[in-house]
Amino acid sequence: MPDPIRVVQYGLGPIGQSTVQTVLDKAASEQIQLVGAIDIDPEKVGRDVADLVGRDTPTGVTVRADADAVLADTTPDVVLHTTTSFLDRMSDQLVQCAEAGAHVVSSTEELSFPYDRHPALAQQLDQAAKENGVVIVGTGVNPGYAMDTLALMATGVCVDVSEVHVQRVVDASERRKPLQEKVGAGITEAAFAEKKATGTFGHIGLRESLLLLADGLGWALDDIEETLQPMVAERVVETPFLTVQAGEVAGIHHAITGYKTGEPALTLDLKMYVGADDPRDAVQVEGDPPIDLVIKNGIFGDTATVGALVNTVPLALEAKPGLRTMKDLPVPRAFATSALAAHA
Amino acid sequence: MPDPIRVVQYGLGPIGQSTVQTVLDKAASEQIQLVGAIDIDPEKVGRDVADLVGRDTPTGVTVRADADAVLADTTPDVVLHTTTSFLDRMSDQLVQCAEAGAHVVSSTEELSFPYDRHPALAQQLDQAAKENGVVIVGTGVNPGYAMDTLALMATGVCVDVSEVHVQRVVDASERRKPLQEKVGAGITEAAFAEKKATGTFGHIGLRESLLLLADGLGWALDDIEETLQPMVAERVVETPFLTVQAGEVAGIHHAITGYKTGEPALTLDLKMYVGADDPRDAVQVEGDPPIDLVIKNGIFGDTATVGALVNTVPLALEAKPGLRTMKDLPVPRAFATSALAAHA
Repeated sequence: MPDPIRVVQYGLGPIGQSTVQTVLDKAASEQIQLVGAIDIDPEKVGRDVADLVGRDTPTGVTVRADADAVLADTTPDVVLHTTTSFLDRMSDQLVQCAEAGAHVVSSTEELSFPYDRHPALAQQLDQAAKENGVVIVGTGVNPGYAMDTLALMATGVCVDVSEVHVQRVVDASERRKPLQEKVGAGITEAAFAEKKATGTFGHIGLRESLLLLADGLGWALDDIEETLQPMVAERVVETPFLTVQAGEVAGIHHAITGYKTGEPALTLDLKMYVGADDPRDAVQVEGDPPIDLVIKNGIFGDTATVGALVNTVPLALEAKPGLRTMKDLPVPRAFATSALAAHA
Repeated sequence: MPDPIRVVQYGLGPIGQSTVQTVLDKAASEQIQLVGAIDIDPEKVGRDVADLVGRDTPTGVTVRADADAVLADTTPDVVLHTTTSFLDRMSDQLVQCAEAGAHVVSSTEELSFPYDRHPALAQQLDQAAKENGVVIVGTGVNPGYAMDTLALMATGVCVDVSEVHVQRVVDASERRKPLQEKVGAGITEAAFAEKKATGTFGHIGLRESLLLLADGLGWALDDIEETLQPMVAERVVETPFLTVQAGEVAGIHHAITGYKTGEPALTLDLKMYVGADDPRDAVQVEGDPPIDLVIKNGIFGDTATVGALVNTVPLALEAKPGLRTMKDLPVPRAFATSALAAHA
C-alpha cells in the first residue's frame, strides 16, 4: 500500500472541523493522515485538533496561525482549505499552498468555476499551480456535485443533448440552525426583500454550477437569468430551532437559466426551505437517450460537503497540474471507507 | 477552437456502424472527424462508410481491411474499436493501435476491467500504451456506466460507505431483435438450462463491473458469487419480433455479489426480459449520507453504448497514458452535442 496522503487542514470553522473529524476517522485505513492544522482564531491556536473537535485521544497536531510555518514544517501532499466562500478574500492562501508544493482542495464556492467571476485571479492561480506542479480545485456538495458534476455525469451516455434541467429541493427543517437562518426561515417577506437587496443573500455558487455544466457540455451560453424568491409557508412549520407561521418566509427559491440560441437550455432550480415537500436531487436530460435521474430524499448536504472535500483529495493527486474544476478530475467516489472494516 | 479529433473506426458491425453514424453527425461541430474505417468483411471492404451506414453523401472514407495501412495513412488521435466482447481474441489489435500512436476507446466488455480475467494481457496492454504515450480504455453502457461508473459516482459525496446495491431492469421488448434472442425470450426453461451450460450465455461484463466498482472504492473482496436464472413469463408477452407464452422464458436474471468480511457488500442485479415491470437503473448506497438514486425507465442501451463510446473519445485524451478504466478518466459527459445548434 502507498504511504498515507499527508493532509493539512486550513481553516477550522464548522466545515473544517467536520473534515478534520472525517480525516481522523479515515486515518485507521492508513490511506490518509492529518499532519497539520491552520487557523488564526486565538481561541483555537495552540490546541490539539482532537480537543478542538471533541475527541478524547490527542492527535499531536496543534492548531497554528502561521500558515507558512505549518506548510514548511509538515510538507503536506494536499491542503484541505475551508476558510471562506469568496475567492478574492483568500486567493493568496491558495498560492501560498501551491508554492509549498501542496495540492489544494477547497470549499470556496466561487472556486468551483472561477473563470467567469474572477478571470484574472483564475489565471494567477492556474499559473501558480502549474509552476509548482500541483492541482487547485474547488468542490462541495453544491456547488461541486449535486447541480453540476452529477448533471454532467447524467449526460455521459447521450449521443445528443438539447437541454438539461436540474432541481434540488432541500428540507431545511432537517439541517443545522445556521442553515435555517441563512435561508430566512421565519422572517417576513418584507425582511426577505431587504436581505435580497444587500446582494449577499441566497445560495452561493449557483452561477458557478451553471457555468461548470455549460463548460463541461462545451456550450457557450448567450444569456444568463438568475432569480431569488422567498418560499412562503402555506401552513405552520415547526423545526427543532424555530417556528414559521403561515405567510412567513420558509426559505429560498433560487433559480438560474442559461440560454442558448434564445432557448432555456440549462436550468438549475434550488429550493431550500423548512417543511419542504418531496426533497430530492433531480436531473432531466432532454437528449438521446433521455435521462430522468432522481436521488430520492435528496443528498444530505451537511455531511455530503465534507464527503465531497475528503473524497476529492486522492482525485486531485491524479489530475494534471493547474487550476482545475470537478469536470477535469476522475469520477468522484468514496475514499477510504471504514464501515466494512468495522464488520470484521 | 482546437483541431477536430481524428478518429478511425475499427470494426463495422452493428455497434461500429452506429458509432460511425454518431461521429458523422457530430462532424458539423468541427470537434471530431472520421478519417478511416477498418473491417475485414469482404462485403464491406472498398465501400464508402456513408454507403455502408445508409447515408447519401459520400464521406471519402473507404472501408479497408489492412488495419496497419489505415493507421499509418490516417494517423488518428483515437481509434473507436468495436470488434468483439472478448479480450483474448483481439488484444493484438489494441497493441497495433497503440503502436500507431493512437488512443483506443473499445466496446470490448472484458476490457472494462481486464486485470482479473486477463492479468498478463492487461500488463502487456498497459506497457504498450505507456511506451507509446496513449490511453487504452474499455467502455459502454454496461459494463462501463450503468452498473459501475454511475454507482461509483453515487458514492462521491459519502464520508463512509458500507454497501452498494445496483439494479438494472431492462425491458427487452423495446430493444432490437438480436437482444431479445440473446436473452432467450421465447425459449423453454430446459433450453435455457442448456444454453447456460455452454458458459457463453448471459450478460457479458457483470464481473468486470463488480470489480471496477470494488476497485474504485478500494475494497478487496473476499469472495464473489454469480448466478444466472431465467425470468419466466407470467403472462403472454408480444413484441414486434416474437411472442412469449406464459411459462416460457422472457429473459435473464443475472446477478453477482461481492463479499467483504462475510457480508454481501456489493450486489449487481441485472434483469433483461420482455415485458419487464418498472424498467430502471438504480443505485442504493448504504453510507453516510445514504444515497437512493434512480434513473426512471432506465437507460436505453442501444443508443447509450454508442454515447458512452463517442463521449469517451475526448476524455481518453485527458487521461494519463496506460491501460485505464472508466474510474481513471474525467467525469463522463456528452460530447459535441448538436441539438441546440440546430435551433439556430
